[in-house]
Amino acid sequence: MVHHMENRGASLDTAFHALADPTRRAVIHRLMTGPKAVKELAEPFDMGLPAFLKHLRVLEDSGLIATGKSGRVRTCSIRPQRLLEVETWLSEQRALWRAGADRLAAYVENQMTEDDDA
Amino acid sequence: MVHHMENRGASLDTAFHALADPTRRAVIHRLMTGPKAVKELAEPFDMGLPAFLKHLRVLEDSGLIATGKSGRVRTCSIRPQRLLEVETWLSEQRALWRAGADRLAAYVENQMTEDDDA
Repeated sequence: MVHHMENRGASLDTAFHALADPTRRAVIHRLMTGPKAVKELAEPFDMGLPAFLKHLRVLEDSGLIATGKSGRVRTCSIRPQRLLEVETWLSEQRALWRAGADRLAAYVENQMTEDDDA
Repeated sequence: MVHHMENRGASLDTAFHALADPTRRAVIHRLMTGPKAVKELAEPFDMGLPAFLKHLRVLEDSGLIATGKSGRVRTCSIRPQRLLEVETWLSEQRALWRAGADRLAAYVENQMTEDDDA
């Protein structure tokens, strides 16, 4: 159980780290509409190919994207599962927040009813 | 407009960076059920107070939490707005993904209908 939690934690670490950069978020954004060749993917970015490939490597290591080679063309595609894990963590936190807000609302309502009774 | 986008980008950078650490995610998790004093917040973590305060500083700088002092007690609370910005970015990407999946489904259905006609 702890081991599973640590694995999940490590993958969240690398996923959040990968998303903490505007170029890498832009790559994710562009891949959301379908797989793209590295060359096409790199085009809009004002940086050298080595720097761009470094960003792709961070994304690939984080599990957010996959790359594959077909002949001489390397193609990148999104791995939605890892992005879903990030979203799941965030929505779990929001659920805690909501539960607290609901408890507060119930408490306030309860107090108001008691005030009515008094 | 571009300026606005850049601001949003910068705040996403720092928010994702802040979330890329298990201690900081655990702090967020604990604050979701309500504000807590720094001392109480630090208790479960096996690290010195200076290291812990450094994590709080990263969270505060990212806008994910706020800290306030009441007498000698410093209290931390969540700032749900920043977390919502992170969730919004993720759900925007997912919407693109869904739109692509819907287009694919429509294309396949269209192809099947054409096959029926043939």
